[in-house]
Amino acid sequence: MNSIYFFELFGTLVFAISGMLAAIEEKMDFVGVIILGFVTALGGGTLRDLLMGNTPVGWMQDNNFLYLVLLAIPICFLARKYIAKLRRSFFLFDSLGIALFTILGTQKGLDANLSVLISILMGVVSATFGGVIRDVLANKVPLIFRKEIYATACFAGGVSFILLSKVIPWESLTMIICALIVLLIRYLSVKHKWGIYVRPIN
Amino acid sequence: MNSIYFFELFGTLVFAISGMLAAIEEKMDFVGVIILGFVTALGGGTLRDLLMGNTPVGWMQDNNFLYLVLLAIPICFLARKYIAKLRRSFFLFDSLGIALFTILGTQKGLDANLSVLISILMGVVSATFGGVIRDVLANKVPLIFRKEIYATACFAGGVSFILLSKVIPWESLTMIICALIVLLIRYLSVKHKWGIYVRPIN
Amino acid sequence: MNSIYFFELFGTLVFAISGMLAAIEEKMDFVGVIILGFVTALGGGTLRDLLMGNTPVGWMQDNNFLYLVLLAIPICFLARKYIAKLRRSFFLFDSLGIALFTILGTQKGLDANLSVLISILMGVVSATFGGVIRDVLANKVPLIFRKEIYATACFAGGVSFILLSKVIPWESLTMIICALIVLLIRYLSVKHKWGIYVRPIN
Repeated sequence: MNSIYFFELFGTLVFAISGMLAAIEEKMDFVGVIILGFVTALGGGTLRDLLMGNTPVGWMQDNNFLYLVLLAIPICFLARKYIAKLRRSFFLFDSLGIALFTILGTQKGLDANLSVLISILMGVVSATFGGVIRDVLANKVPLIFRKEIYATACFAGGVSFILLSKVIPWESLTMIICALIVLLIRYLSVKHKWGIYVRPIN
Repeated sequence: MNSIYFFELFGTLVFAISGMLAAIEEKMDFVGVIILGFVTALGGGTLRDLLMGNTPVGWMQDNNFLYLVLLAIPICFLARKYIAKLRRSFFLFDSLGIALFTILGTQKGLDANLSVLISILMGVVSATFGGVIRDVLANKVPLIFRKEIYATACFAGGVSFILLSKVIPWESLTMIICALIVLLIRYLSVKHKWGIYVRPIN
Repeated sequence: MNSIYFFELFGTLVFAISGMLAAIEEKMDFVGVIILGFVTALGGGTLRDLLMGNTPVGWMQDNNFLYLVLLAIPICFLARKYIAKLRRSFFLFDSLGIALFTILGTQKGLDANLSVLISILMGVVSATFGGVIRDVLANKVPLIFRKEIYATACFAGGVSFILLSKVIPWESLTMIICALIVLLIRYLSVKHKWGIYVRPIN
């Protein structure tokens, strides 16, 4: 489906930029910037494909994903100057990215006849694991473990997608609604500093 | 075989609890606790399955593994209070877990017609790699690199399993003996602070 | 082809030694030394094989790779004493290793009908990812992100290999020339402290 493919490419670009900006902040060299952009953008989908046995993994069979990572380089240079101002729009892009990848991953799981729970998990892995690899390579405790509701928003998006798919006949509409749900949860959790802790941080 | 499956589920539960306790100590949020429990419990088997080409990997085809990880959450909450007292029984559980996973992994390697050496390695990977991923995600040098005889105990368990399988006709008995060997090595190495160092730590 | 296989084994040995020396410097125990040697030597090829869907991965079907990792242990003990003196020859070995693995990986990509760009990337992954895993396990920011032109040299080697393969009819000659190109770039970049930075490190 064309709209899904477009969303996948767009999510790849957004994640590549987010990874590259992280590398620049860490004062990595040019190669580090590219690699971090690459793994952030494609790491989640790669793990999903490996777990599902879809090899060669997606981006190896379609150069467009690589081109988008390369396209992120000049965008990143420009963005660097406006990074402070861009932070808000980046939050939007990143949240949109995880929303799209969650839904795409969930759909791929269902297509492969995996159980509903595992399919949602494939969605969450697609959406979040690129960022986990990014943080591991930058030698940090992954953000996902400390940040406001992040994986939880993905999970909620995946569950919504499963439920709404049974009610709404138009896939695109379902996807948009689910993406909005993820965005809303992310927005509210950041605004109100929501978090689910086993015990308070002292 | 039912007893093997039971052992696999039991090892999963034990490892999930060990990962979650590590996450709580690191003051991760609720999602971090679940993820760390998940990767600790299923990471070793996942890597083994990926290396062997068994995809979709095991836990994706049997929700029971996921349910056990979820079951570990309430257990973990309760265990938290008694963690100091539980440390000794945890050592027992963890050692039992690596013993079981070593033997299961070795058997899976043999079943896939891999060489004996590689099969034992699959066992060691199954037993230890979940903990390695746990430590990497928690931004620590993996315990396996510093702890008393750990991977070595697994390796010894795998070798014993190979040797005893040829002598003892009852698989269950072989497994129990091998598990006891791993437990014994772990117990002695911790008690006497055994370690194999290339040079002494100054 | 015999010469390719020989190069692959030689590269494995060299990388195993480099990983073990890193583990000794980190004061890891004996098991840590073996594991770090193992992942450094075989990690890159493993990731390449996983991404391409070649499972069980290469070293699981040919014990020679494992034997070479084990052979690296005594070599490493001896090398330890002369490590300061050996640093220059190690630079040579390591550069030769990445040159060989880049070319082998690129060739494997082409053989699997992957696009030229993806094939070169498979070469770079083969050459560099073992070192990335080594650094992640040792809890460091991977060297590849900070070092002088490293992945870039691999990339240049892969591109040269693609181009020269079309001109030179003798594969062995092409490989030797490409390896020399990688060596030369590495040598010059270290000598002149070349680096490509997005912005200068303050």
